[in-house]
Amino acid sequence: MIDTLGFAVRQPTDTLAPFRFQRRAVGAKDVRIEILYCGVCHSDIHQARNEWKGSNYPMVPGHEIIGKVTEIGPDVTKFKVGDMAGVGCLVDSCRSCLSCDEGLEQFCDCVVYTYNSPDTHRPGEFTYGGYSQRIVVDEAYTLKVSPKMNPATAAPLLCAGITTYSPLRRFKVGPGKTVGIVGLGGLGHMAVKFARSFGAHVVLFTTSPNKVADGLRLGAHEVVVSTDKEAMRAKANSFDMILDAVSAEHDANAYLALLKRDGALVFVGLPAEPLPIKMRYMVSQRVLTGSNIGGIAETQEMLDYCAEHNIESDIEVIPMGKINEAYERMLKNNVKYRFVIDMATLKD
Amino acid sequence: MIDTLGFAVRQPTDTLAPFRFQRRAVGAKDVRIEILYCGVCHSDIHQARNEWKGSNYPMVPGHEIIGKVTEIGPDVTKFKVGDMAGVGCLVDSCRSCLSCDEGLEQFCDCVVYTYNSPDTHRPGEFTYGGYSQRIVVDEAYTLKVSPKMNPATAAPLLCAGITTYSPLRRFKVGPGKTVGIVGLGGLGHMAVKFARSFGAHVVLFTTSPNKVADGLRLGAHEVVVSTDKEAMRAKANSFDMILDAVSAEHDANAYLALLKRDGALVFVGLPAEPLPIKMRYMVSQRVLTGSNIGGIAETQEMLDYCAEHNIESDIEVIPMGKINEAYERMLKNNVKYRFVIDMATLKD
Repeated sequence: MIDTLGFAVRQPTDTLAPFRFQRRAVGAKDVRIEILYCGVCHSDIHQARNEWKGSNYPMVPGHEIIGKVTEIGPDVTKFKVGDMAGVGCLVDSCRSCLSCDEGLEQFCDCVVYTYNSPDTHRPGEFTYGGYSQRIVVDEAYTLKVSPKMNPATAAPLLCAGITTYSPLRRFKVGPGKTVGIVGLGGLGHMAVKFARSFGAHVVLFTTSPNKVADGLRLGAHEVVVSTDKEAMRAKANSFDMILDAVSAEHDANAYLALLKRDGALVFVGLPAEPLPIKMRYMVSQRVLTGSNIGGIAETQEMLDYCAEHNIESDIEVIPMGKINEAYERMLKNNVKYRFVIDMATLKD
Repeated sequence: MIDTLGFAVRQPTDTLAPFRFQRRAVGAKDVRIEILYCGVCHSDIHQARNEWKGSNYPMVPGHEIIGKVTEIGPDVTKFKVGDMAGVGCLVDSCRSCLSCDEGLEQFCDCVVYTYNSPDTHRPGEFTYGGYSQRIVVDEAYTLKVSPKMNPATAAPLLCAGITTYSPLRRFKVGPGKTVGIVGLGGLGHMAVKFARSFGAHVVLFTTSPNKVADGLRLGAHEVVVSTDKEAMRAKANSFDMILDAVSAEHDANAYLALLKRDGALVFVGLPAEPLPIKMRYMVSQRVLTGSNIGGIAETQEMLDYCAEHNIESDIEVIPMGKINEAYERMLKNNVKYRFVIDMATLKD
């Protein structure tokens, strides 16, 4: 067993505090990763506070992990000691169901999330995430990270990156397509970068007039302030796809109305309350759907794409000790656009 | 001009009553059709009563028309006098937009519906539908009807038929697919017949235990009474597509939960109120969408398919004079499964 220091919440109303626990010893197919950086995802807050129910405590959040391989099991073939490696939202699955066969492990009924999932290696315990010094993961669920990438700006790709990359690819976003991105946050800013890189015409929708300049800088061809009804009307029936990255309550119909026939409004945020959908927008074959992170193979493809095209997240690096303050700032949308924890600041 | 007797409503609160009007003279590309039968669609009631707004009066409803060609213009090539012909929901469109080019005239911005649309041939007037003795239509918007078809049972194919055929084809319903049909009415009973004929495993959902036997007779492999929560739960995650033909308020989430990953819930009914959609059902790439009748080419394909496979609507034939009574019975779901007006009963 490998002694490890992390930060955990011990009950929903807790703040994060130091927590000492054991990682499993490195198995035949495992890699041990000393964590360099871990991104801070909004879902970490939801789960730390049991807002989605089903939280288990103590909980060590974190699923945007990048580090250095320091030990490998005897049967490991993908990694060698010294390699850079990444771990995203999931660390295991059944490997034999239809979803696993299709490389969509995130839909496997037995998926093991990086934290807050029953730990198949240690019955009765739960997985612990990346707000910690190190992690041990099966190489099949570990991503290769190009040595030319900045590990800090690459960390958020493991969740915010794949969550936006996957639906943009699924809907074949590229030249000749007009794509809308709703919300400029951790997910939205990655979606703008990917959609622009794929060659689409990119329109960012934001409620904040003060985000217009940033939206353009990040790659949007146009930014529409969504409270401007005239500007919204002018975009009716013009989008092939709109990726909605807003979890807070908002009017999805306003975006359905902007889709062309057969266009799709794809949610990557998960609003807590049901959305009232006006079916008259649906008769012209418009589509409402959602997306959920991405499988391991596609996550690797995304990381390789980012390395090749110099795509990285816009981040603010924080020390581990500032995590509770970071949560409060995230709840006020006061981050551009992702906090990343520098794990060198987490000392025994 | 061609003197014609029909039945019209003169204001939203009116019942239908005899109404004399003129059809245009037969133009170079027109066919004149003496109407034999006209189906009675629920949307006739919605529009007669201005429930969708935008109704124009006097209004002669009816868009499930079958009759005999009695005169053709000099440039007509598809029809000869004596042929059986059909007219569905639309009688003209711009013929040059993207939708028209794709054979999806129903989405043309300039589509001319069979009734209640501005009449391009008679500026300032509105089109009059099939509750009438005859109609004059451009041959490009007139369907060929096999002489072996029963014109009475074929009439509802022009709307109820194509409205269900088109989405079942679009979602590639066939062998190996499990398809749900929600609601056993004019649309639903056609959907069951088509889905069965296409080779899918067909499950009918109905709120009425007394429709179970009829559902099986019409071709469903299984009938689930949707108020039976246990039976509904047993169907979770098992459908490739569910066609929802219910316009009344109901819980769409109950059907979203029954879809497989990537499965689609397709509305052909048009509920008046927004539907509250739980987005957690959408993250697994489930799709909510709608469909709207079908284009001319696909309507012809559907009629030809029905002629070849002996598919027809289950109908109750009524005389023109019983139309107001029929409307009242439809509002009580008291019809199996479509009223069809015998136009021989409409005499000068």
